[in-house]
Amino acid sequence: MLGIMQEHPLMISSLIEHAARFHPDSEIVTRTVEGPIHRTNYLELRNRSKQVANALEKLGIEQGDRVGTLAWNTYRHMELYFGVSGSGAVLHTINPRLFEEQIEYIINHAEDRVLMFDIAFTDLVQKLAPKLKSVEFYIAMTDKDSMPDMDLPNLYCYEELVQAEKPDYQWPLFDERTASSLCYTSGTTGNPKGVLYSHRSTVLHTIMAATPDGANISASECLLLIVPMFHANAWGIPYAAAMTGAKVVLPGPRLDGENLYDLMATEGVTFSQGVPTVWLMFLQYIDSKPGLDLSKLPLRKVSIGGAAPPRSMIERFEDNGIDVMQGWGMTETSPLGFVNGDLLPKHKNLSKDERFAIKSKQGRGIWGVESKITDDEGNEQPWDGESVGNLMIRGPWIAAGYFKKDNSDQLDADGYFPTGDIATIDSNGYLQLVDRSKDVIKSGGEWISTMELENQAVSHPDVAEAAVIGIHHPTWQERPLLIVVAKEGATVTSDDLMQFLGERVAKWWLPDDIAFVDELPHTATGKLLKTKLREQFKGYVAAESS
Amino acid sequence: MLGIMQEHPLMISSLIEHAARFHPDSEIVTRTVEGPIHRTNYLELRNRSKQVANALEKLGIEQGDRVGTLAWNTYRHMELYFGVSGSGAVLHTINPRLFEEQIEYIINHAEDRVLMFDIAFTDLVQKLAPKLKSVEFYIAMTDKDSMPDMDLPNLYCYEELVQAEKPDYQWPLFDERTASSLCYTSGTTGNPKGVLYSHRSTVLHTIMAATPDGANISASECLLLIVPMFHANAWGIPYAAAMTGAKVVLPGPRLDGENLYDLMATEGVTFSQGVPTVWLMFLQYIDSKPGLDLSKLPLRKVSIGGAAPPRSMIERFEDNGIDVMQGWGMTETSPLGFVNGDLLPKHKNLSKDERFAIKSKQGRGIWGVESKITDDEGNEQPWDGESVGNLMIRGPWIAAGYFKKDNSDQLDADGYFPTGDIATIDSNGYLQLVDRSKDVIKSGGEWISTMELENQAVSHPDVAEAAVIGIHHPTWQERPLLIVVAKEGATVTSDDLMQFLGERVAKWWLPDDIAFVDELPHTATGKLLKTKLREQFKGYVAAESS
Ligand SMILES: Nc1ncnc2c1ncn2[C@@H]1O[C@H](COP(=O)(O)OP(=O)(O)OP(=O)(O)O)[C@@H](O)[C@H]1O
Ligand SMILES: Nc1ncnc2c1ncn2[C@@H]1O[C@H](COP(=O)(O)OP(=O)(O)OP(=O)(O)O)[C@@H](O)[C@H]1O
Ligand SMILES: [Mg+2]
Ligand SMILES: [Mg+2]
Repeated sequence: MLGIMQEHPLMISSLIEHAARFHPDSEIVTRTVEGPIHRTNYLELRNRSKQVANALEKLGIEQGDRVGTLAWNTYRHMELYFGVSGSGAVLHTINPRLFEEQIEYIINHAEDRVLMFDIAFTDLVQKLAPKLKSVEFYIAMTDKDSMPDMDLPNLYCYEELVQAEKPDYQWPLFDERTASSLCYTSGTTGNPKGVLYSHRSTVLHTIMAATPDGANISASECLLLIVPMFHANAWGIPYAAAMTGAKVVLPGPRLDGENLYDLMATEGVTFSQGVPTVWLMFLQYIDSKPGLDLSKLPLRKVSIGGAAPPRSMIERFEDNGIDVMQGWGMTETSPLGFVNGDLLPKHKNLSKDERFAIKSKQGRGIWGVESKITDDEGNEQPWDGESVGNLMIRGPWIAAGYFKKDNSDQLDADGYFPTGDIATIDSNGYLQLVDRSKDVIKSGGEWISTMELENQAVSHPDVAEAAVIGIHHPTWQERPLLIVVAKEGATVTSDDLMQFLGERVAKWWLPDDIAFVDELPHTATGKLLKTKLREQFKGYVAAESS
Repeated sequence: MLGIMQEHPLMISSLIEHAARFHPDSEIVTRTVEGPIHRTNYLELRNRSKQVANALEKLGIEQGDRVGTLAWNTYRHMELYFGVSGSGAVLHTINPRLFEEQIEYIINHAEDRVLMFDIAFTDLVQKLAPKLKSVEFYIAMTDKDSMPDMDLPNLYCYEELVQAEKPDYQWPLFDERTASSLCYTSGTTGNPKGVLYSHRSTVLHTIMAATPDGANISASECLLLIVPMFHANAWGIPYAAAMTGAKVVLPGPRLDGENLYDLMATEGVTFSQGVPTVWLMFLQYIDSKPGLDLSKLPLRKVSIGGAAPPRSMIERFEDNGIDVMQGWGMTETSPLGFVNGDLLPKHKNLSKDERFAIKSKQGRGIWGVESKITDDEGNEQPWDGESVGNLMIRGPWIAAGYFKKDNSDQLDADGYFPTGDIATIDSNGYLQLVDRSKDVIKSGGEWISTMELENQAVSHPDVAEAAVIGIHHPTWQERPLLIVVAKEGATVTSDDLMQFLGERVAKWWLPDDIAFVDELPHTATGKLLKTKLREQFKGYVAAESS
């Protein structure tokens, strides 16, 4: 027997419609690619996304067609979030920091019919165009005056297309499982893979993101969205902002400390989202400018995810009255999976040290994300905070596979998706990542967490960044090699660092050698690119090999 | 093209599973029907709801079968929320305060196979039993020692049934649109009508209820749930509490000020939900006991709904540092529709008077609830805060009709459900109720809001309660009659009150007459029962008829 309730499919268009009706004058403020600050509001943004939908229709874009974007966080990109998906087409956000060959591969693999791009990427697009087989329309996301000079017969001006259309458009209704957007993974462990979201998964994720267990978003917030809109749906914030009518501030191409600080101060930013490397830069900027003061900003909350923030970063924010929310997620998880927000009531009176130990974990699973940790035979491990296992998850906003891949055995028998992360979970459901399964070092049958070694190394006052990879060892199969970048102006010796680590990790975890470099390779989303490091240090023989 | 996301139906059982995994030791505290305080937690509650599911299976209860409850807010009732619906059966919560004939009608209409009841309702059940045709199992919600002495062959003891079962049970998965629960409306305007919720509608409503735009619920809250679990799903709080792991305090049968105050003080209640009449009693209790102080309670937030709270009540709470959240809803809307929670940022700096004027409105539509106001021909009226119209709503947790009714024309051509309420909506989306369409007085082609007249009358210091109904008038068709209950010990004259109103409403709105009574009739959920008043004052001729 079915309930007698109304049947309405969950549609992304409903989010922006809600914003336009209930928060028409709540603002979206952009540092534009062209330079100046641009201000709009949800009513206008809704109208413009309808114009976008009309323009796409005129170009002959149909439901399911992919529309690629190479763009920073701007109001135009946000219009596309709603205009493209709302019309039934698929928004394909592309990371412009990927290697050129990866971008080429991704666009061809996605078969994008349209490529929207910021004029900051004119050269890149000009270079790529001859190799992009499916792209019929190149649309420069700017106005007529700023149109780039390009050698492309099928080049269009975004503002010309959009402004030629009426804001009258009836959002179509269709099966809520219809594809809405496409995003490729960061390519940390291999080639990027395409995750194809649906309207249903996106809307469910959005509501959860708004809850206190998610990112706790409401109209009272002013959000500075630093995490790029091409990185896992910008953690779902553009959708949740519309659903709740929160004011949004978009930094455009300028992720430098100065721009971020100024936007926070002048726009009254209360909550901001970014990866650890961006926050590191931001804090360094503040420290480098006498007179700037973190605690004087209106900022009350930051969310940090995509990689583990060092504990010192968490402490720095919290000591300045800014709550830290860590999030664990993947492109495959829309991305919210585990969130470390407010402490549980029973933990609120712990010592500062104990509280930060909890705050440093990746967080507790939010409703909608079921999880388990398993050994290599698939046996479930207890949630005791000690047992280590492969993190497996399932739920309505978790991928079932990848775009144009054989997805027949992406999930286990119970429908769980293997994250590739190794973790413990404690009795309160707090996830603590140990390592990626591709990174963990198997030394004589035991595991050494490269993540933990790196965390300890960067807690040394003279270390700027650290990476640990496994190098071949005749007896132990693999042993850790620590690769270190010293802080500017500082010197640190192998002996010194080895002693420092000796006080912090088990003896048999100590790296066999330490290499000093000027720079470490990163992925497009700012993560350590260990595949590159492994190539670089292939055949490396430890000085103190024992 | 469909997205490549996992397919998981939205199931009520997932809410309690989440609580058991992530908040196993968060408490559910009950003032039991038997008297003492009982403490349990989500782990135990999940296990007990699985035992309930096993027990129902053993009785032969199948998917879709109705299980009725006549029960106060207790942990057992909460177990049934998850155990009954989770198993695929339909939880039918019955309001024990309805007239006996209504209860009889409802149980027979629902065809309940099981009737669970608190021992407080032993006499009622004994009396009703001979007339209940479908009920095969009467289950007294108590333990063996407290079993009532009843003349019923098919009487069972809840604790015996439940404790005989194992907590091993695999929640079934099925179509998320499957019926989960059934609740009849309050019967204010006629006979109660059955609303049949689904797992999908309930889960979507639950997530929204947890967001700041809904009721803003998280594990940091300790919730005192005063609104009965038989009244519109207790506003969805039992579900949202499980989803977020919030501590729950259940007052059992004792809704008196003393019990509520004590529970708040001893259990650390931060947030509590109830209808205006309960809050009135609660505030009167505090005023009657020297030494009690509202501002000293841990209480930080109250939610008030089901009827309009007088402005003085809102002020009283807010002046004591307690945020007031007004909600507008119906049994048919699960029930969250419009919520007046945090002020919008742009309203936060208004004068106190202006802020309370906004706070007195019914609130802004939450995402998922689309609304319009229409004239009697169905033409949409503008959201200008002035234009009055019939409130029409639609969305995934709004009823499409009623149980066992002809539902072919319950909705308008665009799928909107007519609420029967008359309202304005302003440009920020704030709903302001004018009246019920069945109550509004049509005087010479113009409308007079009985709700507004009543609000003004109760703002007189000597008036305890007031009701306005239309009486026949030869020239104007209908004119208002004001019926007043004076405050204990106070006297108020017709002239005095008429002058008081004369300063507050338009001259042609002034009642034609004022009648003084000792008591006004109420529905089972504490609303004015105007159908009864209209009978009582049928043929009444106004003294000053003009
Ligand atoms: N809070 C966090 N702490 C530590 N690691 C995190 C955190 N959040 C995310 N991660 C890491 O990021 C991964 C997800 O990143 P993303 O989807 O951007 O691509 P990727 O896994 O880096 O790249 P690819 O899958 O292409 O190799 C997770 O599997 C996890 O290893
Ligand atoms: N905040 C509020 N302010 C004023 N009235 C409210 C508020 N919330 C709910 N109501 C009234 O309560 C009604 C819904 O109540 P409920 O579903 O309990 O049954 P009822 O409408 O009173 O009874 P019936 O439909 O059987 O006549 C709404 O239609 C509205 O008139
Ligand atoms: Mg990955
Ligand atoms: Mg009604």
